[in-house]
Amino acid sequence: MMTDYKLYYWSVPFRGQFVRAVLAYAGKTWTEAGDAAISKLMDSPVSKMPVPFMGPPLLIDKKADFAIAQMPAIVLYLGETLDLIPATAALRALTIKTVNDANDVIDEITLDGGREMWTEKRWRDFTPRLQKWMSFWEETGHRHGLKAQSGFLLGGEKPGIADIVTATLWSTMTDRFHEIEILLKETAPLTAALTRRIASLPPLAELAAKAQIDYGDSYCGGQIEASLRKVLGAER
Amino acid sequence: MMTDYKLYYWSVPFRGQFVRAVLAYAGKTWTEAGDAAISKLMDSPVSKMPVPFMGPPLLIDKKADFAIAQMPAIVLYLGETLDLIPATAALRALTIKTVNDANDVIDEITLDGGREMWTEKRWRDFTPRLQKWMSFWEETGHRHGLKAQSGFLLGGEKPGIADIVTATLWSTMTDRFHEIEILLKETAPLTAALTRRIASLPPLAELAAKAQIDYGDSYCGGQIEASLRKVLGAER
Repeated sequence: MMTDYKLYYWSVPFRGQFVRAVLAYAGKTWTEAGDAAISKLMDSPVSKMPVPFMGPPLLIDKKADFAIAQMPAIVLYLGETLDLIPATAALRALTIKTVNDANDVIDEITLDGGREMWTEKRWRDFTPRLQKWMSFWEETGHRHGLKAQSGFLLGGEKPGIADIVTATLWSTMTDRFHEIEILLKETAPLTAALTRRIASLPPLAELAAKAQIDYGDSYCGGQIEASLRKVLGAER
Repeated sequence: MMTDYKLYYWSVPFRGQFVRAVLAYAGKTWTEAGDAAISKLMDSPVSKMPVPFMGPPLLIDKKADFAIAQMPAIVLYLGETLDLIPATAALRALTIKTVNDANDVIDEITLDGGREMWTEKRWRDFTPRLQKWMSFWEETGHRHGLKAQSGFLLGGEKPGIADIVTATLWSTMTDRFHEIEILLKETAPLTAALTRRIASLPPLAELAAKAQIDYGDSYCGGQIEASLRKVLGAER
C-alpha cells in the first residue's frame, strides 16, 4: 500500500513518537524506514541526504516531495499542512515553545543522550527540576482555561499540536515509569488529565498499543534507559 | 524612550544574539532586562513569570502584551509578525529547521552548557562533526541557488530569518575564534560569504559593534568559554 509519508526514526518511541502521534492523529499513513536505513543515511554524504540532518527524526512528505528534519520543524510543518496549529502568531509561537520545551525535557530525562548515567543521587537532585518542567504545562493550561474535565492546553475548540505533543510527552513517559506518573499527577493534575484525555483518543491509543507491540516497553533505549529504569525501580 | 520589546538575555552574545539580530535587522528597539533581573525571574514562582521558562532568552512584545520563551519560538514569532519568514509551509519549516540546527551547534560548541570542559583531544574529535554541521548550511544554500556573490540561504529575493540566524551563528563565532573562521571558509565557502554579506548590513554591523562594546569579546562566558579559547589558541 502506498503511504503518505516516510519516517526515519529509531525503533523506540522517544523523540520520534511526537511525529508519529501527529501523523496518527491526522489519520495519515507512513512507512518506517527502519534502523538500518537510518544508520546508512546518517553515514552517507550530505549531498545524498533528502535534507541535511545530524540524527533522526527525518520525515519525507511523499506527495509534496519534501523532506524535513529537526523534530520541532517537522511538527510545525505537519501542523501547518494538516491544520493542527492555531491561527494567531502568539498561539503558534506558544505551540512551538511547548514543542521545544518537550524536546528539552526528553533531552534532560536522558542526560543529553546518555553523556552520563543516572544514579540515585542525580535523580534525586533532578526531581525538583522535573517538577518545575511539569509546572510549566500546568501554568500554561491554567492561563488558557484548561479544566480537569475539559479544554485544551492553549485554549481553543479542538486538540492541536500543543495537545498532541503534551499527551505524547507525558503518556509515553508515565506509561513506562510509574514514579513519574505519580509525580505528574501530584505536580500537574490538569496536565495529567489532559494527557489522559488526548492519549485515549482512538488514533493515539492505537499508536500506543502499536508501540507496545513493536518496541515492547522501550522508551529511549540503550544504557541510559537501563540506568533510568534502575533509579526508578522500573527494571524489566 | 519607550521601546518595542523587552529582552531577557545574559550580557553575552551566544543564544540571545539570534533574537537581538532579528530585532535589529527589523529596525525595532528593545530594552535589555539585565543579568540581575534574569536571575530573579528564573527563581520566581512559575505563576509570576511572563511565560513559564527554564532559562533565557525570553522576549516581551510590549505592544502585543505577549511574552515568549525558547529561542526558536521567539524567532518564529518575530519572523511571522515582522514579515521575515517565507510564505510556503516547506520554506517555513526549513527556516525553523535551520534555527534548531543553529541552536544545536551552539549547544555542542559549549558541550551542552559546560557539562565537560574542552580539551585538545575533545576538540580534535569534534572538528569533523563541526565541519559536518557547516556542510549542512553549504548544501542547503547550494540546493536553493545560493552563490558566492549573491542569493540567500533558502532562495528568495530578500534576507529572512534563515539568513539572519545563519549570519549571527557563524559571524559571532568566527569573529571570536579565528580557527573556526578558517574552518568555515574551507568547508563552507558559500556560507562564509553569505555570513559576511548579511553580517555587514548596517543594522547587524552596528549590533556586532555594540556587542563588542557591551560584552567585550565574550562569546558564551564562564569556564567553558575559557576552555574553548584555550584549545583554539584564542586566550585573552
